Amino acid sequence: MTELNKALEEISELVYEKMDNLLPNIDECGEKRLHEAMRYSALAGGKRLRPFLTMTSANIFGVSQDSALQTAAAIEFIHTYSLVHDDLPAMDDDDIRRGQPSCHIKFDEATAILAGDALLTFAFEVLADPSTNSNPSIRCELVRCVAKASGSRGMAGGQMMDIISDMGNASINQIIHLQRMKTGELFAISCEAGAILGNAATHLRNMLRSYAYDIGLVFQITDDLLDAEAEASKSKNRQAKSIGKPTFASAMGIEKAREQAKILTDQAVQHLNVFGKKADLLKDFAYFVLNRKS
Amino acid sequence: MTELNKALEEISELVYEKMDNLLPNIDECGEKRLHEAMRYSALAGGKRLRPFLTMTSANIFGVSQDSALQTAAAIEFIHTYSLVHDDLPAMDDDDIRRGQPSCHIKFDEATAILAGDALLTFAFEVLADPSTNSNPSIRCELVRCVAKASGSRGMAGGQMMDIISDMGNASINQIIHLQRMKTGELFAISCEAGAILGNAATHLRNMLRSYAYDIGLVFQITDDLLDAEAEASKSKNRQAKSIGKPTFASAMGIEKAREQAKILTDQAVQHLNVFGKKADLLKDFAYFVLNRKS
Repeated sequence: MTELNKALEEISELVYEKMDNLLPNIDECGEKRLHEAMRYSALAGGKRLRPFLTMTSANIFGVSQDSALQTAAAIEFIHTYSLVHDDLPAMDDDDIRRGQPSCHIKFDEATAILAGDALLTFAFEVLADPSTNSNPSIRCELVRCVAKASGSRGMAGGQMMDIISDMGNASINQIIHLQRMKTGELFAISCEAGAILGNAATHLRNMLRSYAYDIGLVFQITDDLLDAEAEASKSKNRQAKSIGKPTFASAMGIEKAREQAKILTDQAVQHLNVFGKKADLLKDFAYFVLNRKS
Repeated sequence: MTELNKALEEISELVYEKMDNLLPNIDECGEKRLHEAMRYSALAGGKRLRPFLTMTSANIFGVSQDSALQTAAAIEFIHTYSLVHDDLPAMDDDDIRRGQPSCHIKFDEATAILAGDALLTFAFEVLADPSTNSNPSIRCELVRCVAKASGSRGMAGGQMMDIISDMGNASINQIIHLQRMKTGELFAISCEAGAILGNAATHLRNMLRSYAYDIGLVFQITDDLLDAEAEASKSKNRQAKSIGKPTFASAMGIEKAREQAKILTDQAVQHLNVFGKKADLLKDFAYFVLNRKS
């Protein structure tokens, strides 16, 4: 097992445990059903790529593990909310998520809408809590930047563009713009968050941002490529989610898209040079995203 | 025109202007349609009761008008998001809101879900922004408390209970619990926010919280009473939204509910005694909510 695989696995377990501890218990006050749906979706597994970025970048600056974990968990709550809402019938209408029924299938649409809302809201409650970091300026900066990355000028705006975009007419530049918003912004703040927690200088924050912003795009291109392969081989292992949507593979052709992903990855890791050996795990991660098979 | 009416009108205009300034322009980056839907719903009018509470309570502590306005606008974004999502077909399925087509009717369901998400997210971006208050501890406290009031243990939890509650079986205590969460928590933090901005002592924060928590319940009871009257007179001026839902009027009977609202109002204003004449507007507001005809 490589050091990267070990780190991915370890962080995935730690963040699961942290999310489990942070989330309201099912019977705690309020509405049992809502807490059940929140826990169902947040604790369903997943790659935990964004927590990996936060934890690994925080480690460069010697941030305490608990502070980094709590921030990583909050960002993962936001990622989870976006999946719950994206899966709704009015949106991408997906019945399966992370190998189990989507939230609105397991519960119902109203519960899924509210569970998404509550997870998003809870993320900010966690980020603003003194237990995340003793410095209120840092906590405010996290809230502000995570909100900006998730809102209409970031993830939510990207999802809106994705829904109304017309596959036949989307140019490559439009697809890049859409995916930068939909995936890139949250990847970027996940990695930048480690530097924010470490009270790092602006240029170091920007290096980590730029690295992860590119990796977000690489992730999306490889996602499209895996979909295209699954579609070509009619594999049952992967549900091709991008059918009928504008993708890099359909807009550029598979070979060109693969080439583009490689160029972006090389470009991404350049941003890490300033950190020397301390950023080795992030470099390995970049090529892991490029070469992933699932 | 009474002083209260003048204040309500003035604050409504100020908060409209502030929301208009804060919201992204339609063509600004990202997705035009999403920004259009956010502006459509947030700027559609409404009573602006929560902004009134924030502004009036902030005034007691000599908070700058702009700081209070920005906080009030953020809370109103959250109230707006809750209306947009509550109106969705999977939730209360309302076609009309504030006299115009609901967001999902004017646009579509996907856009309404995303516009609600983006308004909620934007509220926290605004609260955490240095322009809201120069003290980061205060901004963090606002984010934390507003998130708590809006999430699964507050507004979202109350809406979940409301959706699954069975009119025939809901006890009065259950209805009170539900409405305290659904309406009371956001009313309470709206008023408490003024004291947080003013760095007020905990007991003063609690007084304003308790006052507004009760007024939130009074608001809900009078809402039910107005619905019951509209239903009885088959008036076309008011759409009875509570049909088929557990209400105070149906659970207690109209006379008893009216009595209860009066008792709660008297109880609410008791909490204001400590502020003397400075809280006169809040006292007037309590009786305005009790005696409102729309």
